[in-house]
Amino acid sequence: MTACPSEFIALAEKLADAARPVVRKYFRTPVAVDDKADSSPVTIADREVEAAMRAILAAEAPSHGILGEEHGRENCDAEYVWVLDPIDGTAAFITGKPSFGTLISLARNGTPILGLIDQAFTNERWLGALGRPTTLNGQPARVRACPDLAHAYAFTTAPELFCEATRPAWDRIAAGCKRPRYGCDCYAYALLSSGFCDLVVEAGLKPYDFAALVPVVEGAGGIMTDWSGKPLTIHSDGKVCAAGDRRLHAEALGVLNR
Amino acid sequence: MTACPSEFIALAEKLADAARPVVRKYFRTPVAVDDKADSSPVTIADREVEAAMRAILAAEAPSHGILGEEHGRENCDAEYVWVLDPIDGTAAFITGKPSFGTLISLARNGTPILGLIDQAFTNERWLGALGRPTTLNGQPARVRACPDLAHAYAFTTAPELFCEATRPAWDRIAAGCKRPRYGCDCYAYALLSSGFCDLVVEAGLKPYDFAALVPVVEGAGGIMTDWSGKPLTIHSDGKVCAAGDRRLHAEALGVLNR
Repeated sequence: MTACPSEFIALAEKLADAARPVVRKYFRTPVAVDDKADSSPVTIADREVEAAMRAILAAEAPSHGILGEEHGRENCDAEYVWVLDPIDGTAAFITGKPSFGTLISLARNGTPILGLIDQAFTNERWLGALGRPTTLNGQPARVRACPDLAHAYAFTTAPELFCEATRPAWDRIAAGCKRPRYGCDCYAYALLSSGFCDLVVEAGLKPYDFAALVPVVEGAGGIMTDWSGKPLTIHSDGKVCAAGDRRLHAEALGVLNR
Repeated sequence: MTACPSEFIALAEKLADAARPVVRKYFRTPVAVDDKADSSPVTIADREVEAAMRAILAAEAPSHGILGEEHGRENCDAEYVWVLDPIDGTAAFITGKPSFGTLISLARNGTPILGLIDQAFTNERWLGALGRPTTLNGQPARVRACPDLAHAYAFTTAPELFCEATRPAWDRIAAGCKRPRYGCDCYAYALLSSGFCDLVVEAGLKPYDFAALVPVVEGAGGIMTDWSGKPLTIHSDGKVCAAGDRRLHAEALGVLNR
């Protein structure tokens, strides 16, 4: 795969720069919460942040497609598609907890080649792109080694987010790891990319929940696939497994599919 | 009960001011992790932060007792006892996640009359003391109304932290609330005190895990008791229920004891 063009990296940063003040304007203020059909919460902040990013894309990359959580799909057969989650972790956002993030990804022919995780309250931005190392606020970020599951700090957002079919797989990971950890949303993948934890396992994600995470994790030296070990694309089924160490990743896939 | 003497409030802030730079020095650095007998992790940061606070107390309040997580009990029959958890949420601390906090409490004859939660990475300090309103960085903090469990965002740190006897009680809360939330350690009580969530339920806590939280929650207009509804003292059994709204608290106790 060829490297991600640098002008697209600059554009992703511009989107994040536009998102951050809108996120900050609404964080920890009494915003009205709607519940979507899948009972995930959404607020005016989600909608306004995504609209701000879409306005920039319309002006600067009119031939690209957009797949956004709040405002739908546009031209998604294009070679380049921007995948946007204005506020990943809306439940964290509305409870005042800074584990949410703005997720921005660029997919080329369905495969994420650029990912950005922006945390507007702690002012942290992780950026990964094909052909360059992942950075946190401009400094290199790097995963850590972890030989096996028994030594791993493993994250997922909440046990309830697994369905009846996938919950036993998480329960096996939780039972076999050093310590299961919860409640981190996209921030767990950011922490993994900076070498602070070892494994993240989730299921039921949408493309805008995971597309941005893949280049961040992989550019930091980690590996992130679906539960069968296949590379993630915007068409994947939403079961993801990210690890900082390939040995741990292989063991975790075995446990998930036991 | 008479108000907390203001010189003790100033002393608590002095302890927190001493703790914060030590916490920041070690956060997100590769610190060695020991596992204690109960398998909770401890680091040099925990020990050094508590030692810094104890040195100040030895100089400024030599007649007071100290009950600390890392360095044990001293003179705990005194009228005034400082209850210290240098890093509550060590597992969060060592995975880079800013939901840990330094907890400082002063108990008078066993009852917490002052509580302080200091988050060193986000620079947030919640301070509650008998006779004055709770503050976040000097500004008033206040709980929000929540009429019942069905409308409540309910936090606990991790389902695994309940034992076989208490886990079903949490499962009933998780099933009955609007949305269970995880992974927040002491920060959940801070968020509740600022009106961003509604309920926190935990079990198996030690006095240094909860003593500081009670004055913060109650000074913000909330209520925090054990699972039988009794006021928490440093001799309580470690099952706690905190709510921003008394109606929700009463309902939650009923569900916990069903």
